[in-house]
Amino acid sequence: MTGAWLGLYRGGIAWESDLQFNAHPLCMVIGLVFLQGDALLVYRVFRNEAKRTTKVLHGLLHVFALVIALVGLVAVFDYHRKKGYADLYSLHSWCGILVFGLYFVQWLVGFSFFLFPGAPFSLRSRYRPQHIFFGATIFLLSVGTALLGLKEALLFNLGDKYSAFEPEGVLANVLGLLLACFGGAVLYILTRADWKRPSQAEEQALSMDFKTLTEGDSPGSQ
Amino acid sequence: MTGAWLGLYRGGIAWESDLQFNAHPLCMVIGLVFLQGDALLVYRVFRNEAKRTTKVLHGLLHVFALVIALVGLVAVFDYHRKKGYADLYSLHSWCGILVFGLYFVQWLVGFSFFLFPGAPFSLRSRYRPQHIFFGATIFLLSVGTALLGLKEALLFNLGDKYSAFEPEGVLANVLGLLLACFGGAVLYILTRADWKRPSQAEEQALSMDFKTLTEGDSPGSQ
Repeated sequence: MTGAWLGLYRGGIAWESDLQFNAHPLCMVIGLVFLQGDALLVYRVFRNEAKRTTKVLHGLLHVFALVIALVGLVAVFDYHRKKGYADLYSLHSWCGILVFGLYFVQWLVGFSFFLFPGAPFSLRSRYRPQHIFFGATIFLLSVGTALLGLKEALLFNLGDKYSAFEPEGVLANVLGLLLACFGGAVLYILTRADWKRPSQAEEQALSMDFKTLTEGDSPGSQ
Repeated sequence: MTGAWLGLYRGGIAWESDLQFNAHPLCMVIGLVFLQGDALLVYRVFRNEAKRTTKVLHGLLHVFALVIALVGLVAVFDYHRKKGYADLYSLHSWCGILVFGLYFVQWLVGFSFFLFPGAPFSLRSRYRPQHIFFGATIFLLSVGTALLGLKEALLFNLGDKYSAFEPEGVLANVLGLLLACFGGAVLYILTRADWKRPSQAEEQALSMDFKTLTEGDSPGSQ
């Protein structure tokens, strides 16, 4: 729907032109909303699969999200530079930098605690609830930042036409509501106790992690 | 801080003038952000107090929040009517109507299930997790809607001056970040397992509710 909005009303996307800006909303929505949201749900959707597979999928989705979001960030800074616009003055940009910084830190800490084989078992289980809380918070802040950016684009582009219920304004409002609903749906799936990984599978996987730790890495041992 | 922004840069607040609009952001932030957030934390802050007292405080804070938010809604619709502005065209207004509607429904359902003495015990415990989830979601959507409104006000009022880092823009951006942090802090307190009501007190209170139900209402029986 973000693509449809940009294609129908904003002239589409191209890197080497004024349309470079349009890469920003598309990449941010795909990376920090859609893929980040999907990554959060991996442990719920595949709750009966092997923990290692799930963990790798969770990490991979976050790598894609990070790279795509980075392209989106480069697009907007490059566009601003070419046009001579000021950077980082708006609430959208402040929230955006905050959320991207937090996302990057969360990625690094998550990687070193959960994927890197050296982290002690006790540290992992102490950090896990914090990782989940900050993951959900960063995701929700990403959705909020996307809404702020959408609003900014509408006010810049539509001006007085926004209040005349122009089709672009209505489409973009519906897009905004859908992004908010996606955020709500991810939060709902994430917080249902019934949909969490069964604790038996969890314990089994943890002891396996511990085994891996003490006996060395053995891929495909499951 | 919302008051400081409105007082320092927006001319303050008065009902019978153009300043009527300013009652809208102030009332919404006090009602649907501050008081609603406080109401959510009552069961955590007073987790060792009697359940009935806590419940009444939770309900009372939500009554204040609802009434103050209603004043804020009347202010903006009345202002738009006097000025001849269009209503409900922006993403902020759509999110706002959605969140106020959900808040009102949540209030009604919460009242009839938890405060009204006739609701069956089993229904209460089935509905409780949904009530908590939707309460948190409505609160977070309220914070997001406040940020959208703040952004809208800045773009309408500051225009090109926003990108020149005017003091008003910086103050309002900081206000936006603080609102987002407040949302994050409430979510953190709400989701910590250690800070939940101890299950013993919960069970005791539940059986007391059941006693009240079967023996008739006996205020002050604690």
